[in-house]
Amino acid sequence: MDIYFLLFEDFETLDVFGPVEILSRIEKVKLHYISLSGGIIKSKQGFYTQTESITGIAPNSIVVVPGGQGTRSLVSNELFIKTLRNLCDRAENVLSICTGSALLAKSGVLDKRNATSNKKAFDWVRSISQNVNWIKKARWVVDEKYYTSSGVSAGMDMSLGFISDLFGIEKAKQIAFDIEYFWNSNKECDVFE
Amino acid sequence: MDIYFLLFEDFETLDVFGPVEILSRIEKVKLHYISLSGGIIKSKQGFYTQTESITGIAPNSIVVVPGGQGTRSLVSNELFIKTLRNLCDRAENVLSICTGSALLAKSGVLDKRNATSNKKAFDWVRSISQNVNWIKKARWVVDEKYYTSSGVSAGMDMSLGFISDLFGIEKAKQIAFDIEYFWNSNKECDVFE
Repeated sequence: MDIYFLLFEDFETLDVFGPVEILSRIEKVKLHYISLSGGIIKSKQGFYTQTESITGIAPNSIVVVPGGQGTRSLVSNELFIKTLRNLCDRAENVLSICTGSALLAKSGVLDKRNATSNKKAFDWVRSISQNVNWIKKARWVVDEKYYTSSGVSAGMDMSLGFISDLFGIEKAKQIAFDIEYFWNSNKECDVFE
Repeated sequence: MDIYFLLFEDFETLDVFGPVEILSRIEKVKLHYISLSGGIIKSKQGFYTQTESITGIAPNSIVVVPGGQGTRSLVSNELFIKTLRNLCDRAENVLSICTGSALLAKSGVLDKRNATSNKKAFDWVRSISQNVNWIKKARWVVDEKYYTSSGVSAGMDMSLGFISDLFGIEKAKQIAFDIEYFWNSNKECDVFE
């Protein structure tokens, strides 16, 4: 299984590296860190990481889209949104964290779907598309191949939920135990509204 | 406040980037990513990040030491251990996550102190130094300026605990709320033994 983390300037750190920690523990998985143009990308928290440019994805791949301050300008970047749309169309599953769902919404892939996002940015995210059934009270939301989580740390719980859906709950529980993580496994339990 | 994250080959991702997400939310904080020789460092989860070489630290700094597979060989790297010792002696506080405490133990700074570490690697960590009072059942342990956490995700809870100790519990709760994180605030509550 190939998993592509789509990075951009000012992405939110834990949106990416929480899911990285968890999804890396799937057997025979290969993680990729990609960006629109490749090269060095700076996170909101100021560290620099190397990425490959997007040249397509392997069959049956997972695409992970983080959120963060960088999404505010990225929704207006037509090339990025078009590229994201292509990635989503080809991916087996798409996971977004926090305001990453605003990028998905802008690309149109969430039209007529249920989705969630970061609580603090919810009004802005909702303004990006009226065609999405936005659900505010949710740890994460699943609609066919699309998984969208609420803010930042919710991406970890969703990643475990995704693993549970694919490989069974015992596998998810084992990974949570191995990283000494208290998994909030109920996607409808959300106290942050 | 300056916070230095000490990276090395095969560090564990969430050990670093969980605390980064939380500690970056301290007001007027400056984060640094350092390594023994500087340059590009590869995490256990296969991404590459840029670091500065260690040239000293600012007064009143915090040093954060992650764990991970890389610690297994690093405990035998005399230059690294000596450099770590110097950093610790100068730091206002030192925080370790997971098997990062094995590196601290090797440097001698935990002699006669209480400390904890990753559950799965506990026997190995204990073997590194008999001079430490290792506490297995703990989410994290505080001994004067030294904070040591148990495995991987415990570093996030400890980081919030550290902020609580420095700036008050309301500040820690606010940060947890902002990143939609269920904070396990009791450092003695540990179900992973």
